Amino acid sequence: MAESPESMQCPRPLDDYPRIVMGHGGGGRLTQELLERVFLPALDNPALRQREDAASLGPIQGRLAFSTDSYVVQPLFFPGGCIGDLAVHGTVNDLAMRGAMPVAISAAFILEEGLPIETLQRIVAAMALASKRVGVPVVTGDTKVVERGHGDGCFITTSGIGILREGVELSASIARPGDAILINGTIGDHGMAILSHREGMEFGSPIVSDTAPLHELVATMLAVCPEIRSLRDPTRGGVTTTLHEIAAMARVGMELDESSLPVESAVQSACELFGLDPLSVANEGKLIAIVPANSVDRLLEAMRSHPQGRHAALIGRVTSDASHRVVMRTALGTARMIPMPIGEQLPRIC
Amino acid sequence: MAESPESMQCPRPLDDYPRIVMGHGGGGRLTQELLERVFLPALDNPALRQREDAASLGPIQGRLAFSTDSYVVQPLFFPGGCIGDLAVHGTVNDLAMRGAMPVAISAAFILEEGLPIETLQRIVAAMALASKRVGVPVVTGDTKVVERGHGDGCFITTSGIGILREGVELSASIARPGDAILINGTIGDHGMAILSHREGMEFGSPIVSDTAPLHELVATMLAVCPEIRSLRDPTRGGVTTTLHEIAAMARVGMELDESSLPVESAVQSACELFGLDPLSVANEGKLIAIVPANSVDRLLEAMRSHPQGRHAALIGRVTSDASHRVVMRTALGTARMIPMPIGEQLPRIC
Repeated sequence: MAESPESMQCPRPLDDYPRIVMGHGGGGRLTQELLERVFLPALDNPALRQREDAASLGPIQGRLAFSTDSYVVQPLFFPGGCIGDLAVHGTVNDLAMRGAMPVAISAAFILEEGLPIETLQRIVAAMALASKRVGVPVVTGDTKVVERGHGDGCFITTSGIGILREGVELSASIARPGDAILINGTIGDHGMAILSHREGMEFGSPIVSDTAPLHELVATMLAVCPEIRSLRDPTRGGVTTTLHEIAAMARVGMELDESSLPVESAVQSACELFGLDPLSVANEGKLIAIVPANSVDRLLEAMRSHPQGRHAALIGRVTSDASHRVVMRTALGTARMIPMPIGEQLPRIC
Repeated sequence: MAESPESMQCPRPLDDYPRIVMGHGGGGRLTQELLERVFLPALDNPALRQREDAASLGPIQGRLAFSTDSYVVQPLFFPGGCIGDLAVHGTVNDLAMRGAMPVAISAAFILEEGLPIETLQRIVAAMALASKRVGVPVVTGDTKVVERGHGDGCFITTSGIGILREGVELSASIARPGDAILINGTIGDHGMAILSHREGMEFGSPIVSDTAPLHELVATMLAVCPEIRSLRDPTRGGVTTTLHEIAAMARVGMELDESSLPVESAVQSACELFGLDPLSVANEGKLIAIVPANSVDRLLEAMRSHPQGRHAALIGRVTSDASHRVVMRTALGTARMIPMPIGEQLPRIC
């Protein structure tokens, strides 16, 4: 049987390419095959299926929240997750920290020539599972390919659209002296999971990333206390950086109680070995909440009833320090300042 | 005067870092300095100034369009533009191709350690100028840094939100036999500008990228013909790929008139030298419009009245080919098939 000109043009279907080649980013047939065989089957939803330059979403009433983050984590797979679910959770959480309900996510991939297709499939499968669990579809996307040695396997940028709740005005700038500082669980898990995995070390029990979506926990919290002042997820730079940011924006100080900080013993051991402070290590399923002091009990009760808040704790209070310092009160009653981290404790953590 | 603990922690302000270091991606003080000294001054707007995890936008009524694209173009600066304005125009155009009016853009940067800060400033300045000209603010963003040799200077991912016009339903799937194929100007300018610049070659007059926002041209076109079937910007893979995509989605064929294709003579010369077909070379300020045949005259008149459509042309027609082929009718009256490009004519073109 004579081959058609088209089939002659494409002697090697995707099955023959075990790894990403430059042509997968060319916009032609190989790009379409990648879309049809990897992305669409895993992430399928009506908006993505349109295959237009932009996804068309349903009618929306209200104020929007909009957020974006790039993910360059190494390794791509780590205990507790991978870059695929991390990218979904991270953008969902950025929306949730404004009190927004996420409605749609975009995902743009920058792939390095030579990445095994099977690796990409595992990443996309994790993204799809996270998207399904969160209930927020990946409605539009993009794929680019860079030459070997000009990228690093896979970078992902997710953006998210959310709808802001009426009557909720979360902002770091409205924290007030006397407010309480809450966290929904243990500190430093994500960063130390990555670092331990990189270094091939074990610390008694394995350290697992806390990567998780927080929008439902936030909904639970706002239901019992719509007057929450600020929510922030302490990712890069950890709790320390987040508290410094809030302190600077609200022109207040922060005081932490050392004995109240929830830290897993394996994370504590790993931090001691590497000379790191868990407070400055990245989290990917944690939030810092600045709340009115009289709402602490009902908030902690609500948080502890939720899977993402079982180990919720009151860890400190907002002060009226005119220098906007973050201070640690030790078990012995002494105080020490916690400076803002300058740069990088752990590179490529998210 | 004794230094405060904070100032002692930060002996080197940004001015002392002529190049990007890993710490600029760490989320701590260096990241904040980059934000305050490079991004915020250039891109300043109320939403970005909030400095929250997600931007809060005003109330929106209607249906949304949502799009994302990563930009990995090399070189970062090329005749006619740079990665900064390209990233804004590209996302504005993806929204415009759905008939959506762009309202907000996000920008996520993946920087390679060692990138000169001055280079980043030039890129951000170009992004800011494009954003201002388009009238669409960059409301939220992110910066990550990867080690030297694990990135390539600067990658940018922009996402955009737009509002869909009521009564306009643009889709590649509704092209019909008998429809006309229009383009708003010359073909292949962007790709050949990049390639010529890379190769250090000149072709009589310099070849300049056509990177430009198309949302106002689209508004002009929809004003005289709301019944336009499909709009697509022929970027990667060029006009050929775009026509194949529309043909496959609408289950039709496409026929082009070779003599009607607008190609700059310098682009034609460059394509001949490199053995490329201008039809498969990327454009960044062009659109293919599939329109009812009886609207051609008024559309061409409207397009030619607009700066982005001065060289608008009728280049072919939609046919009822059951094999969904794209066919070129030559000046001699013969016909030849134009296959879908497989992969990559020109890598890293956008």
